[in-house]
Amino acid sequence: MTKIKPRTLSGFMELLPPSQVCFNTMVHKLHETFSLYGFTPLDTPLMEPAEILLAKGGGETEKQVYTLRKGDTDLAIRYELTASLAKYVALHYNDLTFPFRRFEIGKVYRGERAQRGRFREFYQADIDIIGDGALDIMNEAELPGVIYNCLISMGLERFYIRINNRKILSGFFEILGIRSGDESTNVMRMVDKLDKIGADKLLKSLIIDLDLSQEQADEIISFVTSKNDPFLTLEGYRGKNEIFDTGFEELSALQQHLAGFGVPDTHYKIDISLARGLDYYTGTVYETYLSDYPEVGSVCGGGRYDNLAGFYTDRKMPGVGISLGLTRLFSILQEQELLNEAMLSAPADVLIIPMTDDLSHAVKLATSMRESGLRVQIYSECKKFKVKVSYADKLGIPFVVFLGEDEIEKGLITVKDMSSGEQTTASSAMLTAGVCEKVKALQKGMPIKEKSDSLSHSAR
Amino acid sequence: MTKIKPRTLSGFMELLPPSQVCFNTMVHKLHETFSLYGFTPLDTPLMEPAEILLAKGGGETEKQVYTLRKGDTDLAIRYELTASLAKYVALHYNDLTFPFRRFEIGKVYRGERAQRGRFREFYQADIDIIGDGALDIMNEAELPGVIYNCLISMGLERFYIRINNRKILSGFFEILGIRSGDESTNVMRMVDKLDKIGADKLLKSLIIDLDLSQEQADEIISFVTSKNDPFLTLEGYRGKNEIFDTGFEELSALQQHLAGFGVPDTHYKIDISLARGLDYYTGTVYETYLSDYPEVGSVCGGGRYDNLAGFYTDRKMPGVGISLGLTRLFSILQEQELLNEAMLSAPADVLIIPMTDDLSHAVKLATSMRESGLRVQIYSECKKFKVKVSYADKLGIPFVVFLGEDEIEKGLITVKDMSSGEQTTASSAMLTAGVCEKVKALQKGMPIKEKSDSLSHSAR
Repeated sequence: MTKIKPRTLSGFMELLPPSQVCFNTMVHKLHETFSLYGFTPLDTPLMEPAEILLAKGGGETEKQVYTLRKGDTDLAIRYELTASLAKYVALHYNDLTFPFRRFEIGKVYRGERAQRGRFREFYQADIDIIGDGALDIMNEAELPGVIYNCLISMGLERFYIRINNRKILSGFFEILGIRSGDESTNVMRMVDKLDKIGADKLLKSLIIDLDLSQEQADEIISFVTSKNDPFLTLEGYRGKNEIFDTGFEELSALQQHLAGFGVPDTHYKIDISLARGLDYYTGTVYETYLSDYPEVGSVCGGGRYDNLAGFYTDRKMPGVGISLGLTRLFSILQEQELLNEAMLSAPADVLIIPMTDDLSHAVKLATSMRESGLRVQIYSECKKFKVKVSYADKLGIPFVVFLGEDEIEKGLITVKDMSSGEQTTASSAMLTAGVCEKVKALQKGMPIKEKSDSLSHSAR
Repeated sequence: MTKIKPRTLSGFMELLPPSQVCFNTMVHKLHETFSLYGFTPLDTPLMEPAEILLAKGGGETEKQVYTLRKGDTDLAIRYELTASLAKYVALHYNDLTFPFRRFEIGKVYRGERAQRGRFREFYQADIDIIGDGALDIMNEAELPGVIYNCLISMGLERFYIRINNRKILSGFFEILGIRSGDESTNVMRMVDKLDKIGADKLLKSLIIDLDLSQEQADEIISFVTSKNDPFLTLEGYRGKNEIFDTGFEELSALQQHLAGFGVPDTHYKIDISLARGLDYYTGTVYETYLSDYPEVGSVCGGGRYDNLAGFYTDRKMPGVGISLGLTRLFSILQEQELLNEAMLSAPADVLIIPMTDDLSHAVKLATSMRESGLRVQIYSECKKFKVKVSYADKLGIPFVVFLGEDEIEKGLITVKDMSSGEQTTASSAMLTAGVCEKVKALQKGMPIKEKSDSLSHSAR
């Protein structure tokens, strides 16, 4: 028979068991943290009618959407989670209670050329709060707390959240006499490139590409590169433009509550140059950077938008949300060797190696240890003793139980702690309790472990 | 702007939040139970090269596979999880330790016409144990214990597992002079229809459609419909055929350990008529039926196979596995109103309603309650008091905290238990502890709750 060469498509992350356990722990931590903030889990279909997923349009991204046809229906596979949320909220409006807080952690697909750090199948973890008609600024103030606690719960510490309010930039541009609409949007997009191209290039581009006057361009540069306390810079423009003033008030209100929400001031930065590319943000915007790897860009971003479900309904549904690119974050951490290898990633806590032909005692012991919450395998293959023990060793199973005639006769078991090599013979009840306790301690490991040398660097 | 009508494709299950929580709890219970038996979680890509997913062929099913083309690659979307496992094991052979025990709970896709109880997107929960060269019968004996504990952990009690060993039927057919190979396979498939078509029709079909003699057909009918203890029936054929004898020994060994693995004899049935349709099973086979709804067929089945990765390698890799159709099971339970509506499905345990303009106390309280593990929302929208309280009511949030000037001044909070209506004012530390305890009790609910009237029926 001709054999097929087994392969996984490029751009699809397929993990070996220990890495998968680490990844799942990160997912679990996100799930837990999102829940603490009162978000309900959703799990929407991966396929939707093409018109639903492509409603927003989206230039480059649209070209990457996987589409297929079955019967007379044009189907598409989701390339992010927001379009599905918009449909969900419009479709189930009458069954939902607003503000509606949901999270979804799911796979999305983009048929782009796979390259380092780019995936064609990847997880996004999104939270959104959707209002019916209105949505208070407090919701925007709460999200940095969620980001902070998500990353901290995974074991990451060296990151910071950049926060701005788009109304400030929009208002500021109006004060400078830049027309709102396309002109303002173009300037916003250009300013968003500051980090990439630097102040000199930005100044030139504003004048040459966007036709701003030297004065306008100078003032923009001085505004977005100011090293002063951002609120001091903003203070100088207050009272000149309504949008600007609203943005100022919202940003102040937000900042005032960050400490209360548990975000220490080492972990956020009010940054009035932050614009974010996507046009639909209308208020607060967020981006999150790894302090030691700013070059990988934002790993978690989002913001406030005014109209989630405009394709479906005239009802105004403002929202605020963030999206964490989990697969990408994981691959960066893996590349940088920041994943915690000491985390318990074995498939079992205990391997029972029966030393008699009759396995009934091993079976009963396995069942009773499982009832105590231990994850147990029985090694029942016909192999040499050495192979059996090395099975536990290779998989990192922390405890091995030997069950021979001697033990069975005396009603005892022998447990070997694989890390210390220590071997104890005693009653199964006693040893099970001891193993349970030790396993609990082993499970406390976090999926991310920053290296001590990176921790010695300054904060940012 | 022209509006789009929001819709979800037929055959795609999209749940409202309370049902989603119930579904997720079932997934969580599966995850937990699989882990107790030492299975490691995998999460393989949903898309694979078409040649990988279609390697097995498969007639009807192949027509249902979603395929698409991107660049010069033919892609397919998985329609079950076994093909992906075969590829995984072949591709990562050198990095795995055998026997390899994995579980995967994931979505699969079939482009069939959607009908009641049939889904185009649905979850399968699979476990498999893959050996390298050989795999002991004990692995086959362990799986009914996994099935039993999975369903029990969800709250289901009225089900039973049918178990047989295909070698018994194969050997028995050989004893009757039916040639192994196609002839034997055809008889096997026909016998598998016994439950659907009854003994009379089966007898006729064996003679007319499959050309068996009256004697052969009679003996098959008497064999598969015997009401005796199956081992008594089998005993009469021992020593006549090697395959039969092996099957007999394997089935006896398996049965001998079921009690040890915790499966009570009310919940399984050795059924020598069970064949299962799929050709690749070679030993033990399992099916699981809901006692009150046998007509929905098996909700969890599987068996032993001899060659998982034959398309990729000459290495023999026998395995045993089961697959639980989670979406289908959930939809049956939902239809039969067996889901536990009393389960805590609210997005939060506590809703804080601030009664002052300054929200900083509410924010601090929310943060401290979250640190205690409570899921907390702050209601910050500008609405009437009644609307705020009814928000908690509609979502089933069990506790509401009122935080007014009075409370803040005195350093107290007021908690309302929404189920009893009882209102208590005390220190936040004390009330947080009390709420934590009550929430823990609420969380103990299982996703499935059989109705007392169905429980009064006889066992099967």
